[in-house]
Amino acid sequence: MELAAKACPFLRNSTPSALRSLSQKPKTAMASNGLVHMAQQCPVMGKAMTIQARSAMMSGCPVSSGARHFSGTAAKAKPAKSQVLGYASAATSNDLKASVQHELHKANPAPGAACPFKPVIPASHAVPTAGKPFDYEQVYEAELQKKHQDKSYRFFNNINRLAQHFPRAHTAKLEDEVTVWCSNDYLGMSNNPVVVETMKATLSKYGAGAGGTRNIAGNGAMHLALEEELAALHHKPAALVFSSCYVANDATLSTLAQKLPNCVILSDAMNHASMIQGIKHSGVKKMIFRHNDTAHLEELLKTLDPSIPKIIAFETVYSIPVQTAMDQVDIISGTLGKAFGVVGGYIAGSAAFVDMIRSYAPGFIFTTSLPPAIVAGATASIQYLRNSPHERIAQQTNTRTLKAELAALDIPVVPNPSHIVPVLVGDAEVCKAASDELLRSHGIYVQSINYPTVPRGEERLRITPTPGHTDEMMGHLVRSLESVWQRNGLKRTSQWKATGGRAGVVEGAVDPAPIWTEAQLGLSASVLGHHKVPTGSAPQDTLTGQAAAQL
Amino acid sequence: MELAAKACPFLRNSTPSALRSLSQKPKTAMASNGLVHMAQQCPVMGKAMTIQARSAMMSGCPVSSGARHFSGTAAKAKPAKSQVLGYASAATSNDLKASVQHELHKANPAPGAACPFKPVIPASHAVPTAGKPFDYEQVYEAELQKKHQDKSYRFFNNINRLAQHFPRAHTAKLEDEVTVWCSNDYLGMSNNPVVVETMKATLSKYGAGAGGTRNIAGNGAMHLALEEELAALHHKPAALVFSSCYVANDATLSTLAQKLPNCVILSDAMNHASMIQGIKHSGVKKMIFRHNDTAHLEELLKTLDPSIPKIIAFETVYSIPVQTAMDQVDIISGTLGKAFGVVGGYIAGSAAFVDMIRSYAPGFIFTTSLPPAIVAGATASIQYLRNSPHERIAQQTNTRTLKAELAALDIPVVPNPSHIVPVLVGDAEVCKAASDELLRSHGIYVQSINYPTVPRGEERLRITPTPGHTDEMMGHLVRSLESVWQRNGLKRTSQWKATGGRAGVVEGAVDPAPIWTEAQLGLSASVLGHHKVPTGSAPQDTLTGQAAAQL
Repeated sequence: MELAAKACPFLRNSTPSALRSLSQKPKTAMASNGLVHMAQQCPVMGKAMTIQARSAMMSGCPVSSGARHFSGTAAKAKPAKSQVLGYASAATSNDLKASVQHELHKANPAPGAACPFKPVIPASHAVPTAGKPFDYEQVYEAELQKKHQDKSYRFFNNINRLAQHFPRAHTAKLEDEVTVWCSNDYLGMSNNPVVVETMKATLSKYGAGAGGTRNIAGNGAMHLALEEELAALHHKPAALVFSSCYVANDATLSTLAQKLPNCVILSDAMNHASMIQGIKHSGVKKMIFRHNDTAHLEELLKTLDPSIPKIIAFETVYSIPVQTAMDQVDIISGTLGKAFGVVGGYIAGSAAFVDMIRSYAPGFIFTTSLPPAIVAGATASIQYLRNSPHERIAQQTNTRTLKAELAALDIPVVPNPSHIVPVLVGDAEVCKAASDELLRSHGIYVQSINYPTVPRGEERLRITPTPGHTDEMMGHLVRSLESVWQRNGLKRTSQWKATGGRAGVVEGAVDPAPIWTEAQLGLSASVLGHHKVPTGSAPQDTLTGQAAAQL
Repeated sequence: MELAAKACPFLRNSTPSALRSLSQKPKTAMASNGLVHMAQQCPVMGKAMTIQARSAMMSGCPVSSGARHFSGTAAKAKPAKSQVLGYASAATSNDLKASVQHELHKANPAPGAACPFKPVIPASHAVPTAGKPFDYEQVYEAELQKKHQDKSYRFFNNINRLAQHFPRAHTAKLEDEVTVWCSNDYLGMSNNPVVVETMKATLSKYGAGAGGTRNIAGNGAMHLALEEELAALHHKPAALVFSSCYVANDATLSTLAQKLPNCVILSDAMNHASMIQGIKHSGVKKMIFRHNDTAHLEELLKTLDPSIPKIIAFETVYSIPVQTAMDQVDIISGTLGKAFGVVGGYIAGSAAFVDMIRSYAPGFIFTTSLPPAIVAGATASIQYLRNSPHERIAQQTNTRTLKAELAALDIPVVPNPSHIVPVLVGDAEVCKAASDELLRSHGIYVQSINYPTVPRGEERLRITPTPGHTDEMMGHLVRSLESVWQRNGLKRTSQWKATGGRAGVVEGAVDPAPIWTEAQLGLSASVLGHHKVPTGSAPQDTLTGQAAAQL
């Protein structure tokens, strides 16, 4: 941010020992140490730190990273030589300290280089000069500076979602509660009592961790039951669970493509980063087809010999309901960390395919398996949702309500058929400022989504209505967005359309029909207003006369 | 295994509908369906399925994968064209089924191809023939057949570690309990009441999952506290948590090396698979130095321009205790899934370095963050172990006892200074048979460690004594190993030495001094026998007069 290039009079006039002393003062509810507390009083730092106390540390500022920066590395600087990375596979911290025989040199940290209050050396200065030791820290600083300059540097908000008060969360201060409007916990399953109690019971019975890889002591009945459940869910003979869906996609695509001789991958232009990594890591030839453009895909397929193996890789938030369409997909990957509310990822497919990935993918083989409590919680969540439509009905209805209300206010929503409501801002800095204002002034948490998650210029507030959002919350959200749009003069739908449009918000654009039809949701005027979310701690859902009128 | 190439008279003489009907019978404690139950009665299948009921499914056998194979995919076979992979990012299963508009063709599964009872087509047959559609299933089968042929095919044992009876576990049947001797839960922290209760309380307060990436709703006080704890543990300014240590190593090494211009990586020959993947994925030049050979490392370093950036990557189970050695390592990665008993991985290093990885590594950015309960449990575990030496003392003492007793019996142990006791077998099939015999006949679970985890010919039973193993368990383990060695005529230490040796079990080899000295463990003859593990549910540790005598 703009702070990075400025000198701070407080830091300049303080002795290192005074700073160290401050940093060692005990933690308070507000600050991790006295130095952080001081920084919070600063007119420059204070603003940035109110919500994101820790993010300052992440940007490399000693103000919140504490005394270690002053007393530790800088004091022992030696000529730089190599960046030494040790993988601590030993049992404990004392093992670590006692376990290295290499007397390798420590890279030379430029004194104070990690502090954003000092001028940062541009990347061009980091080019190596023959004979001189390489300055590693300078490269790190320069790479961070790039992020600050193009406003894509990320400050993590401190959000603690409260299971008993879903979708409420407390921020860095326990007493500062906000309503979360951007979680991927789309159906509120993270606070579902069936899921939470299953996990607690499993913790009591089987402990905190799996204790090994799937092959060595880390494979139990809970893992097998989850894979059976996932296979059944997707109508496939077999399934396999990974640490995350990122790992599932990366490991599966890279391993599969490497095993198929002369394989070509046809990849949708908008695929998730994890799929792109898996394709890249496979090293095979890839062809990109335009997002959702089956004609383009067919065109590319025609250029390829029918006898060579091909993988067509795409994501599935598609608009035309075809009940059996997914059955025609050979391999499905998915996440347990969004709608299912827990964590982890999986693939499902033919038995031989799944067994081959199980047998060859390093990302599956060489890692501790997910804890029994996690996989048991995921299984419970899937089973629950297979039997309960209420969460999905309330979520879809809330989504329609929100879209309709924003449309009435001329606030721009990127058209799409899913449950996600992306509100277009179109500028990284403005988008972050709008998100900050919603959090600070309105008690609403909607993260600004900037590059690299979305293309530059398509920055947005991605809102995810859940079954737990009440009428009152919805009304407050809509009024707050209108206030932020007014106060900051943010562009309206009509203005985007008048100026050529962006990210689908263009003249003549029509929001595609939702994935769920009213019939699929089991909705009619007479039943609306009567759906209840049957989970114990979730607020009742928000189907009202208003929502009904808009359907 | 040898089953794969044989025809099964039961399957041959059963109609598909009879098999389907059997497979749909309800689950029992013993089998997931009636078909599995039948298979357990089979003289051929029964043996393989006793312990590994599910592993048969994983090998692609319809006997345990259920009716879907018969009634589902085979019935709808179309000409093969592409392997279609869909990433299910939609909210629910119904979304998935309703969400694909592409009418893509389904690969043609060879009827019954997934069944190991039928002959498997060798890999050479899978080479594409011009004009003919590619046969994907044949490739999967051929790749699996390779694993069966070289005996590296893995059957997962079904092991459910019981928190209240650590280190006991039940297998596929609740009533069949065994003692686990190969878990990576080295210090029994997975059953530590402080860890388990912290996780349960966190579940109640913050729910099952984080609900988003670290940037979007998935960053809370628990994550920040864990990173603060890890930074302090390693005396570094900053730390960053990942889904796993595999992901931490892969993401960090690939991102770091790509950011350093003209970087060269010097990598220990025995590095973990995750580090090798990270190095490979970086695409930069790498040089391999012989395991732990600093002279070779120095030699390689001398060939490189001092001005270019270098990464030296190695693991840290090293033998010479140097208290401050790890402080000279710039970047540390580690796991939360072994000694700390939970799951996850991390890096620690300078603030700017950690911030750069946080800002650029796709494996960190684009994935759901670990659940609050997991990170809170890991934090509790680290804090607990920083204050309690008892677990480490009991673990180290048990390790010394076991090594001494095996040495007395001429049973070969690969020399090493760590807490792991690798018992050399030296053949994949024999090693698996020994592991199976220990499990079936002695109630002891020690997984056979085969390729690719260890080099071919160095197959071993990797035993990990923990603080929870009692005298009685230790005695039973040693007697059981002796019995298996005798019954099967397995090679003794003296025999390995007489025939040239292997995996460090060579003439003149001396077990290196343990990482922990007696002084570091706080041990003297007078205190031995009095250490207790203070955790509620763990059995008291095993320090005895015998152990004392051997120290």
